[in-house]
Amino acid sequence: MGRIICCGLGPGDPDLMSVRAAREIRAAQHVAYFRKKGRPGQARRIVDGLLAPDVREYPMEYPVTTELTFDSPEYTRILSSFYDDWAHRLVEIAWKADVIVLCEGDPFFYGSFMHLHARLQGRAVIEVIAGIPGMAGCWNAVGMPIALGDDVMTVLMGTLAEEELTSRARGCDALVIMKTGRNLQKVRRALENAGRLDEAWLIERGTMPGERVARLKDVARTECPYFAIVLVHGQGRQMELAE
Amino acid sequence: MGRIICCGLGPGDPDLMSVRAAREIRAAQHVAYFRKKGRPGQARRIVDGLLAPDVREYPMEYPVTTELTFDSPEYTRILSSFYDDWAHRLVEIAWKADVIVLCEGDPFFYGSFMHLHARLQGRAVIEVIAGIPGMAGCWNAVGMPIALGDDVMTVLMGTLAEEELTSRARGCDALVIMKTGRNLQKVRRALENAGRLDEAWLIERGTMPGERVARLKDVARTECPYFAIVLVHGQGRQMELAE
Repeated sequence: MGRIICCGLGPGDPDLMSVRAAREIRAAQHVAYFRKKGRPGQARRIVDGLLAPDVREYPMEYPVTTELTFDSPEYTRILSSFYDDWAHRLVEIAWKADVIVLCEGDPFFYGSFMHLHARLQGRAVIEVIAGIPGMAGCWNAVGMPIALGDDVMTVLMGTLAEEELTSRARGCDALVIMKTGRNLQKVRRALENAGRLDEAWLIERGTMPGERVARLKDVARTECPYFAIVLVHGQGRQMELAE
Repeated sequence: MGRIICCGLGPGDPDLMSVRAAREIRAAQHVAYFRKKGRPGQARRIVDGLLAPDVREYPMEYPVTTELTFDSPEYTRILSSFYDDWAHRLVEIAWKADVIVLCEGDPFFYGSFMHLHARLQGRAVIEVIAGIPGMAGCWNAVGMPIALGDDVMTVLMGTLAEEELTSRARGCDALVIMKTGRNLQKVRRALENAGRLDEAWLIERGTMPGERVARLKDVARTECPYFAIVLVHGQGRQMELAE
């Protein structure tokens, strides 16, 4: 019986995946990954050039959703059935051989593999290989420590309500906001109201081709890629030593 | 002229360092790392078996401190001069060749390299290679997602005051507390007062030999290693899809 191995791929640069993930991916006979219909898929792109010539690929294509909003019960039902089906198929493959599931960043940190992970419990041997979270690739792109000393760091999703984003941005030292995308204007207003817009950076495609790093206040656009991240760096509480 | 390359080593398992970090370390001629006097050093241990036979090693040994408390001005002065000296020595090495500085976890995430980084600005070409943060190794050891959906995650240092630990533990979904060590009893009281002790895990030496994972409420000891981490998992706000 095989295993279902979820490989964290790191922030995007293939050189930043772990030694273990790279070894498993090169040796893989069966590789599955999420993608939007008609797109190559970000996870698949990261492993370009690593896969064996005779690998079997399983693109797990999200059901088309143009006609339904993300929070409608009908969309939730369709997506749930999509995860059910793929959990079933992965278990079937794992009866005979190892199967790798590719996952951007770190699988246990807001990863979409978790929808499968919850469904696979007790049905197969599951291994998860940690990866560098996307946010770490982004703060590396800025080239300054995100947090040091006794800094308090908060990670927020841009999908939260503006009032919560504002109060939480006010109440921490270092700040990471993920899932910006269509929420960019809301995130900007929240940071402005929290008095932290001047310190904020927007990182798009961190560590990937087309990486862009800018001060958020200088960004005129109203949207950005889903994987863009906003950062506010901590200043290092109790850090007399850094002087 | 060479570069000063700070290699993030990840959480401890050498297999979890990045492909790029492993390549730089294998090729290195000059390798520096922090350690306590008389100890082999955690960073050095992680790269055992990777270093070239003719590598030159530079253990940066923290000044002995038994007679001084960590927050005394005298200790601060001694440590500051220690970092000044090593910044100077690294710049001198980098005039002739690349020099690798080993750093546990991710260098920009509460990393001790930052004391050197601040001093090296403008004096040498500096590169930083991201790594998997120690906390990610720890939540991987528990085998459950630390955060998902719209969860708010907070990272705290166990060195903070008990009142702040309590209020912040109450006000988030997912929680990471680093630098537990001698602060373990304070951290436990704070989590109990925040009503979150039952959900908390203590992970010692995550991904390393001697790894221990336990529910914090079941841990009778009053101290733990400096690198131990306490985790409280988020439950996934807005995560109907996981059902």
